[in-house]
Amino acid sequence: MKSKFIVIEGLEGAGKTTARDAVVAVLHEQGIHDVVFTREPGGTPLAEQLRVLVKQGIDGEQVTDQAELLMLYAARVQLVENVIKPALARGAWVIGDRHDLSSQAYQGGGRGLDTQLMTTLREAVLGDFRPDLTLYLDVTPEIGLQRARARGELDRIEQESLRFFERTRERYLALAAADASILTIDATQNIADVTSSLQSTLRQWLAGQVA
Amino acid sequence: MKSKFIVIEGLEGAGKTTARDAVVAVLHEQGIHDVVFTREPGGTPLAEQLRVLVKQGIDGEQVTDQAELLMLYAARVQLVENVIKPALARGAWVIGDRHDLSSQAYQGGGRGLDTQLMTTLREAVLGDFRPDLTLYLDVTPEIGLQRARARGELDRIEQESLRFFERTRERYLALAAADASILTIDATQNIADVTSSLQSTLRQWLAGQVA
Repeated sequence: MKSKFIVIEGLEGAGKTTARDAVVAVLHEQGIHDVVFTREPGGTPLAEQLRVLVKQGIDGEQVTDQAELLMLYAARVQLVENVIKPALARGAWVIGDRHDLSSQAYQGGGRGLDTQLMTTLREAVLGDFRPDLTLYLDVTPEIGLQRARARGELDRIEQESLRFFERTRERYLALAAADASILTIDATQNIADVTSSLQSTLRQWLAGQVA
Repeated sequence: MKSKFIVIEGLEGAGKTTARDAVVAVLHEQGIHDVVFTREPGGTPLAEQLRVLVKQGIDGEQVTDQAELLMLYAARVQLVENVIKPALARGAWVIGDRHDLSSQAYQGGGRGLDTQLMTTLREAVLGDFRPDLTLYLDVTPEIGLQRARARGELDRIEQESLRFFERTRERYLALAAADASILTIDATQNIADVTSSLQSTLRQWLAGQVA
């Protein structure tokens, strides 16, 4: 099978890290061991610097929504060109903790940034590069944030209002409904059930891949 | 007279710093003393961090043309929203060492990035915000780079090929020819003559301002 780029998406506290381990386990079952992990924003030295700027802001300076979006795409293009594409080209599978769908959901849905701008940006910087599969872990903001809070301190974006995360989730659901390469997993269940749903969804998808 | 945003543009070694002092001297003649200086990329804590990333790159990582452009616009929107607009609103004049025209000339002309993308980006992040006046100091790349080299070390962008700067200059000239708010100064002359041309151009422009 040709190597694939599989992305895990969802709100804070959706269970993306656990899901990543579950995805790896299924790939191992299939004899796939050359797997590269990425996280966004980040994953290259420059992109990690941008991650810090986006997540923490700086010196109390107001980060405009536009600057946030542009830094996220700058980080993404670095990761795609310098890490993801080379990994796929040498035959490795890539599992991404977030990718472009996060920007569409958080910046497009949560912040309400112009969809046309986001489409233009994506096409300009990523061309027709897309994940082969996105596993969207769907939780309500209440459940997700409760889990995230239990983990410790919240960053600049995680401190947004509940309404922000509701708009983000609505956009995730709308985008997932409109795109066959995005599969939605109910992540409000307990961890064992989420893992089991995710793994059977993934096995089914892998079985349907012809190339 | 309403406060204005005056930008000084040109290749490395065109004489922008000397020009800034010359502009300030003319403003002082007119009784204008509340003047804010900006430089791009930079001018806010976040924008200065982005300046370092753009100018120096990081850990030998290849900075893609798209990431460079996006970081420049992220820095610009921070500067415009957090510094330039507030300064103009309180009645200060703003003198900018570079602004949007640099991206159009360097990234659009020099790097050959898509003009449509750049127009979309500019409109999305800056709306209809524009300098009142841009003074473009025109030098050949040979003269400019010779002067820049005499000043010391060259940064990542200043190390580009001569052909890159020729394309940049061509774009500067074309943009200046098409926009009445951009006035071109012959900056190949000696400093005294450049200063004198610039100051008489500026005095004339100021005399023509009705508001």
